[in-house]
Amino acid sequence: MTVRVGVIGVGMIGQDHIRRITQVLTGGTVVAVNDVDAARAGQVAAALPAATVHSTAHELIADPQVDAVLIASWGPAHEEQAVAAIEAGKPVFCEKPLATSPDACLRIIDAELAAGRRLLQVGFMRRYDAGYLAMKAALDDGSIGAPLLMHCAHRNPSVPPYGFSTEMIISDSAVHEIDLVRWLFGEDIVAATVLTPRRSSQAPDGLQDPLILLLEMANGVLVDDELFVSARYGYDVRGEVVCESGTVALADVGEVTVRAYNQHRGRVPADWRDRFIRAYDTELQDWLTAVAAGTATGPTAWDGFAAAAVTDAALAALRTGQRTLVAMPDRPDFYPKAPVR
Amino acid sequence: MTVRVGVIGVGMIGQDHIRRITQVLTGGTVVAVNDVDAARAGQVAAALPAATVHSTAHELIADPQVDAVLIASWGPAHEEQAVAAIEAGKPVFCEKPLATSPDACLRIIDAELAAGRRLLQVGFMRRYDAGYLAMKAALDDGSIGAPLLMHCAHRNPSVPPYGFSTEMIISDSAVHEIDLVRWLFGEDIVAATVLTPRRSSQAPDGLQDPLILLLEMANGVLVDDELFVSARYGYDVRGEVVCESGTVALADVGEVTVRAYNQHRGRVPADWRDRFIRAYDTELQDWLTAVAAGTATGPTAWDGFAAAAVTDAALAALRTGQRTLVAMPDRPDFYPKAPVR
Amino acid sequence: MTVRVGVIGVGMIGQDHIRRITQVLTGGTVVAVNDVDAARAGQVAAALPAATVHSTAHELIADPQVDAVLIASWGPAHEEQAVAAIEAGKPVFCEKPLATSPDACLRIIDAELAAGRRLLQVGFMRRYDAGYLAMKAALDDGSIGAPLLMHCAHRNPSVPPYGFSTEMIISDSAVHEIDLVRWLFGEDIVAATVLTPRRSSQAPDGLQDPLILLLEMANGVLVDDELFVSARYGYDVRGEVVCESGTVALADVGEVTVRAYNQHRGRVPADWRDRFIRAYDTELQDWLTAVAAGTATGPTAWDGFAAAAVTDAALAALRTGQRTLVAMPDRPDFYPKAPVR
Amino acid sequence: MTVRVGVIGVGMIGQDHIRRITQVLTGGTVVAVNDVDAARAGQVAAALPAATVHSTAHELIADPQVDAVLIASWGPAHEEQAVAAIEAGKPVFCEKPLATSPDACLRIIDAELAAGRRLLQVGFMRRYDAGYLAMKAALDDGSIGAPLLMHCAHRNPSVPPYGFSTEMIISDSAVHEIDLVRWLFGEDIVAATVLTPRRSSQAPDGLQDPLILLLEMANGVLVDDELFVSARYGYDVRGEVVCESGTVALADVGEVTVRAYNQHRGRVPADWRDRFIRAYDTELQDWLTAVAAGTATGPTAWDGFAAAAVTDAALAALRTGQRTLVAMPDRPDFYPKAPVR
Repeated sequence: MTVRVGVIGVGMIGQDHIRRITQVLTGGTVVAVNDVDAARAGQVAAALPAATVHSTAHELIADPQVDAVLIASWGPAHEEQAVAAIEAGKPVFCEKPLATSPDACLRIIDAELAAGRRLLQVGFMRRYDAGYLAMKAALDDGSIGAPLLMHCAHRNPSVPPYGFSTEMIISDSAVHEIDLVRWLFGEDIVAATVLTPRRSSQAPDGLQDPLILLLEMANGVLVDDELFVSARYGYDVRGEVVCESGTVALADVGEVTVRAYNQHRGRVPADWRDRFIRAYDTELQDWLTAVAAGTATGPTAWDGFAAAAVTDAALAALRTGQRTLVAMPDRPDFYPKAPVR
Repeated sequence: MTVRVGVIGVGMIGQDHIRRITQVLTGGTVVAVNDVDAARAGQVAAALPAATVHSTAHELIADPQVDAVLIASWGPAHEEQAVAAIEAGKPVFCEKPLATSPDACLRIIDAELAAGRRLLQVGFMRRYDAGYLAMKAALDDGSIGAPLLMHCAHRNPSVPPYGFSTEMIISDSAVHEIDLVRWLFGEDIVAATVLTPRRSSQAPDGLQDPLILLLEMANGVLVDDELFVSARYGYDVRGEVVCESGTVALADVGEVTVRAYNQHRGRVPADWRDRFIRAYDTELQDWLTAVAAGTATGPTAWDGFAAAAVTDAALAALRTGQRTLVAMPDRPDFYPKAPVR
Repeated sequence: MTVRVGVIGVGMIGQDHIRRITQVLTGGTVVAVNDVDAARAGQVAAALPAATVHSTAHELIADPQVDAVLIASWGPAHEEQAVAAIEAGKPVFCEKPLATSPDACLRIIDAELAAGRRLLQVGFMRRYDAGYLAMKAALDDGSIGAPLLMHCAHRNPSVPPYGFSTEMIISDSAVHEIDLVRWLFGEDIVAATVLTPRRSSQAPDGLQDPLILLLEMANGVLVDDELFVSARYGYDVRGEVVCESGTVALADVGEVTVRAYNQHRGRVPADWRDRFIRAYDTELQDWLTAVAAGTATGPTAWDGFAAAAVTDAALAALRTGQRTLVAMPDRPDFYPKAPVR
Repeated sequence: MTVRVGVIGVGMIGQDHIRRITQVLTGGTVVAVNDVDAARAGQVAAALPAATVHSTAHELIADPQVDAVLIASWGPAHEEQAVAAIEAGKPVFCEKPLATSPDACLRIIDAELAAGRRLLQVGFMRRYDAGYLAMKAALDDGSIGAPLLMHCAHRNPSVPPYGFSTEMIISDSAVHEIDLVRWLFGEDIVAATVLTPRRSSQAPDGLQDPLILLLEMANGVLVDDELFVSARYGYDVRGEVVCESGTVALADVGEVTVRAYNQHRGRVPADWRDRFIRAYDTELQDWLTAVAAGTATGPTAWDGFAAAAVTDAALAALRTGQRTLVAMPDRPDFYPKAPVR
């Protein structure tokens, strides 16, 4: 069965998912698109064999040709679109963040609970990265003992000179590690603290960059996450989990070693696509395969909510300079404790 | 357009390509299968949505539902099947070796010349490996100067205890490097020599393992290729090109570094699938995409012939202990000098 | 000129320095020893060509055959011995810590100020490690910009099952990083915070292990230092300085890579001697050379005081769970701001 | 006891050994020097506390103040000087090559046999390198099985534009690997072959650079040694021994990893002193310690002869293009089969 996908939002990430479904993955086809920018929607559709342009997201969701919905619109629109798709009984892939507030996430969860079956997968693609999967395998096989702490670094070469705020370092960048460590350790995050090291003179005006985000897991594991969006030298995501009898760390990703000019040198990725392109592919293939099979997989709406709740606490910690507890209601039994992926 | 593929030969490698077309790649579907073992063909077809079983390769080739032919039968059958597919005007992907003798390869070339257009791609998948592609990019950008020599190692953990001969170390293993260096340097191989180091006591009875194969390129570049099929510790393919002002080498491929028991450790692949699975995917996707576009790409029949001619010389060198010249006729202008891929 | 050294304290570290002076370094000879355990002093002296055993440290210091004094006694004795040696006008090498309280350190400083010339070098040997020296060179050459933060890890395989307290993780282990970052960045530490991750079940009863120590430098550079004395897998000291346009990190130290059992593996040092033996050699050679030349080098008494003041603040932070400011008086002009070594 | 050393030949290497004895090592002092350039001998002696300048090597050897002789003169003078020192009953450290022909080496051996005790150590310093020592330990512990073959590379950034001949690539560069593999495997070399890859356009006029030297050990182990003296990018010595169940390779030697400009980078040594300075220190300290103890250690005169015999065969192989057997008489029982160091 080929899954007929309707894509809401055809900006950079939406177009990239369309390319993926069309040119890389198996089992999916893009049959409908929608965007707040109708002209852009038309241009994207024109390059596809047979895709309808819908003037609203609701129209796309209601289209009987659409088996499943991929939401890549901007964050504030996610809630309404995800709820509508769920109410229409259609599987949804929703880019992160699930929604822009914990409460909005809870309303999506309510819709899914009402539907009575999992319909939504959140786009936390790091769970599909070969590096993190190998890290999780090393943790889960028990040979290096229980995890005690984790060091993360998340470095982007640069951000746009205007419009990127210090808060976005938390909500856009750190949200990846927030979901990742919940998945990696199978535990919730109970508190967040933000530290502000010396500011880089290379950072855009007004941006406090880098930051250190401290996350405390329910079982005591402490995560320190260096977030540095003006790191200049490349896109570098690093991680080391320290366990009771050993550690496991992401390895460098370069394919070759060049020896020249008194150095041996390997490549650092240029950007996040370069680094995580395979994870995006695997993530979306998993979604298509699950949809075709009538099942669901990957990060749940509850994971989306949990990330939002921790992000909220981290933003409060950034504002106040204080350690901030995460407000988490009880998890509905509907959602698994241990992440499936 | 979805390319409707007929697969001849559904042993291990044929089944793996069927899995790839069906579950991993985009743009292809398997509509017909054939195998000398009819029962096996039936079992494989039964697991596919709609695949016809043909009792002969010729019948499969003639099937109007079959747009393109994938040959994964045993080597001695390749010539007849490839020629038939070319004469039927159908694109062919032929697993390596193209055929089991240089002369047989030349007859396939004659068929393609008669057809007047490229129809055949040979399955030399290393050209699609991210490591070798990065190596070639480093060579081609000129920053480390002209290549002078190359060190290769090709290590398999083990071979079956019976039925694997010393000759097969050349014809089955070394053939990968033989094609690779022609592609990497854009030059032909003019001579081969085989050296016999101390034999491993772990090698099956009668097997001279390891070997060193020396290949001389037309421009003087000297390649030494260690071939060791009883290496036990893993599947390890290594390569370093030494140039006039630097070198480029394949990096290790492990995803994580584990620190335990006074060591830091990374993974060595378990087998060739583990190491090259992505290269196989890319190779076959390229073929499907080219077929759908009515074009051809990848290693040509001439490349298949050249590999066979060098293999022949290397086998003679193994028998005689002497440096042996490669007998190469002039390349028809039909085939490009510089490999497209 | 051969420097005639008197050694006070001939336990493990004292004996190691004697071996160093006697069998490894040039320009020194051990002519006198003293220890609270007179029998041990006698045994050590018996193995030396011509060393006098003194019954008190004061007697050793007063011995006209003794050109210079090496203090390797236990910490509480350092103050009195160092002051006595300085008052006798003799150069002193004093193992870390300089003394067990900031005030005691200040009294040593007063003695040195009264002497009017530098006589004392503190045994912070990491400043002499090839790795840290290369790190400092990379920082100082300016090519990766100003430092913003540093990640450290200091892992010991184990500590004795009894008698090693959580406080000692600060005073014995972290003191190395405390001095190191002052030297590396040429800045003072202004505040300390201690975090307590999940406790290792492998740690001795009552020990909170690991810890994270946060150090804030006067210029805003933030240092996080993972201290883990039950790390089991080896002695592993790691460090990465994140700068405005790049980072510099200690590399692994193994001499060879072994490939076996599907892994490539390098060595992690077994203990601190294995890791830092060369740094100890260089440190003491520098001292002997300076003494012979009538000059002084290396970490000063002021560096010893600063380390004690920061250690004090870190211990308070450990007790209270609060960020604690470091109480630092003005530095006498007598001592250089930028560390000489 | 301090060993009083007389140094014959105070060019670059002689001066470096004097610096080593005087400023780095323990247990030695330089009391006499001689050089064919008397002015240079005078200058060097002037910088030493108390060194006599002798007008001839024989006079220096006869000087009763000289306990032991270090020969760092040019190769053709070694034979006469080494024989004279042995006949005087004085321990000798002789820089490599022991002498410039196998026959000359045999005459030194005759002198030592006549003396009836080992007096001479040859300066093959690679046996003292931490990397090769770790490699030998990994081989000797048996965990990766019996050795089968070895890949070596010996790359210098450049040689002087005039006066360095292709033969010197064998006699000056390859001689290090020739001795090394005899030591590493405890076996003699029975044959040599020289291959000539594409010549680097960066090599001085008339120099065939790089070369590949193939060495066959008595037990069948095959060594390929890439020799490249115009490698430009640095001084890089590499080695990997392939064994029956694993391999062991020299690791990179850089102290830190710098991340900048989309790369992670480590250092390649600038020259042989940078790479092997510690090995030189250890080598000469071992000699001084052995001399002081009245014993002998390290590479023997027989090792010096064996290296000369293999060098001779390799030079013949270079001239003729043919595999050349090594002419080796029976080893006198006086010399150990298995190298002591």
